[in-house]
Amino acid sequence: MQIAKGVEWTTHICTVIALLPPGRGLAVDVLADFFEVPSAYLSKQMQLLRRAGVVESVRGKSGGYRLAKTPDDITLLDIVLAIEGPKPAFRCTEIRQNGPCGLKRTDCKRPCEIAAAFAEAERVYRDALKVKTLASIMQEAAVNAKPEHLNDIGNWVQQQLP
Amino acid sequence: MQIAKGVEWTTHICTVIALLPPGRGLAVDVLADFFEVPSAYLSKQMQLLRRAGVVESVRGKSGGYRLAKTPDDITLLDIVLAIEGPKPAFRCTEIRQNGPCGLKRTDCKRPCEIAAAFAEAERVYRDALKVKTLASIMQEAAVNAKPEHLNDIGNWVQQQLP
Repeated sequence: MQIAKGVEWTTHICTVIALLPPGRGLAVDVLADFFEVPSAYLSKQMQLLRRAGVVESVRGKSGGYRLAKTPDDITLLDIVLAIEGPKPAFRCTEIRQNGPCGLKRTDCKRPCEIAAAFAEAERVYRDALKVKTLASIMQEAAVNAKPEHLNDIGNWVQQQLP
Repeated sequence: MQIAKGVEWTTHICTVIALLPPGRGLAVDVLADFFEVPSAYLSKQMQLLRRAGVVESVRGKSGGYRLAKTPDDITLLDIVLAIEGPKPAFRCTEIRQNGPCGLKRTDCKRPCEIAAAFAEAERVYRDALKVKTLASIMQEAAVNAKPEHLNDIGNWVQQQLP
């Protein structure tokens, strides 16, 4: 079980485009260069974020992607669900209905105990990602980073704007 | 992100082989038939469980797989780690070290805030699976099941033994 690399990449990217001035965006190619990740793959992942309402695209010379909401309103769970889709990691195929002792479908209205246990684990996993906003991640990063590193990133963003 | 089907299948199978008398096992083919799942794939998954010390194999006429420990000592996490391996779902590739503002490797001793948030979510996920033993799953199932269904499974297991 592995989360798509796009989750790591786009989360980092969201913390960068969060620094853009109003109405401005950054192109996928520019963002791909910033993190040295493949532009074509990144482009698909950013489209998934756009469809999920996490980022929006700005047209024109200074166009590209920007956050569609404030960093306070975007959680790590929003990004995971945008990239991975809404389905849970454990997908019950109801094998209790199979074979010589299989249950009737009508007797399987409640999830089985195994499926319920995995659903509960997934619930706490998602809850942990839901309380982590982009704003909280950025704040922690700002506390832990060297000031010159934050300056470097801020300057780089400014330099990309025509 | 999807957990291997083998996790669902082998967890169900563990609840069945838990009913075996001492020293007895059930063959993969028999178990595959019980849940109508492909025998070849199941065989590989059961080998993973054996390597992880969750099940053991018994030789001879009444041979096959049986639990290597009591149902109290086997958790859903044991089964997930046996099938999926120990790696976390989120695998940080340290892209903060890339590109024009990349950090030096020596400045990245602590995990970044994004990796740390995913590690924390995975920790609570694993903890939730760790408290679910096979015994607790079987007890819940026994409470929720119709008595005749439990009888059917018990009788089926007995019939498989020479």
